[in-house]
Amino acid sequence: MEFSFDEKDFVSCCGSTKFAKEMASASPFGSLQDAVSVARDVWFNSVDVNGWLQAFSAHPQIGQSHAPSVASEASAQWSKGEQSTALATATGSSLQELSEWNARYREKFGFVFLICAAGRSTDEILAELKRRYTNRPIVEFEIAAREQMKITELRLAKLFSSRENISSTADK
Amino acid sequence: MEFSFDEKDFVSCCGSTKFAKEMASASPFGSLQDAVSVARDVWFNSVDVNGWLQAFSAHPQIGQSHAPSVASEASAQWSKGEQSTALATATGSSLQELSEWNARYREKFGFVFLICAAGRSTDEILAELKRRYTNRPIVEFEIAAREQMKITELRLAKLFSSRENISSTADK
Repeated sequence: MEFSFDEKDFVSCCGSTKFAKEMASASPFGSLQDAVSVARDVWFNSVDVNGWLQAFSAHPQIGQSHAPSVASEASAQWSKGEQSTALATATGSSLQELSEWNARYREKFGFVFLICAAGRSTDEILAELKRRYTNRPIVEFEIAAREQMKITELRLAKLFSSRENISSTADK
Repeated sequence: MEFSFDEKDFVSCCGSTKFAKEMASASPFGSLQDAVSVARDVWFNSVDVNGWLQAFSAHPQIGQSHAPSVASEASAQWSKGEQSTALATATGSSLQELSEWNARYREKFGFVFLICAAGRSTDEILAELKRRYTNRPIVEFEIAAREQMKITELRLAKLFSSRENISSTADK
């Protein structure tokens, strides 16, 4: 069985145009594992630093549900799901503190704080933000890129599982 | 003796607005060594990745004498001086090859090939460009930032020596 997706599907996983184009060219994939392997290679070896910044800019600020206007609908929906633990554990004051630290982070690094939020509480995310805030800009840039890859992998898995569901329904 | 410079002086050494602002705030400096030490700290620990890209964009493509429109007059003049060995050793065909590899480099990395060209021949620069072209984008980004710092240090030295000349003339 082969899984075929287009550029729009991939841009919902990772907002770099180059990433989405190269993934669409490499599609169809025989399995999720194949797609993840190609995605890692494209993201770390082929997408340039401008592409990394472009992908980062497609994420909402963590703790906020509204996605930036450049984000696709699927990407915005996925952001909400990924942050469900954080939002469920958040209090008014922790959200306020998160918002202040997000602003401080963006002021220092020039891009939004990125973390693979799935399963993490607001307190965990805030502690991580404060820890990472002390990094040098170039060090933090690479950490953010690795977090983006984790998010991309989770989203590719969702993309593939939605296709498998459709296919198994069609088989019945 | 103290050396006082303004933002415009520093932006000629390194085209990042943040770099120039922070250097101007830290000015006056007691010596070139003091200025270099602050400059390294600002460049590597405070200027973010957007600031690095801004500084890179102020350089002409190597082998070309015309600077980008964002470059200051002093910066454009210094670029010419720094490339004097390269230009003196260049043949028509080596300049052509350099131009082709520059285009390839920019296509892969999204910014101009940066090298502290002072004292290097065209052949040396071309060999280095080809070697660095194989790097991952994030690796090359850091190398380019270190080359920018070397260029900045040379230019700070010129800035200070021009001031010393004026001062010793005034002393006479």
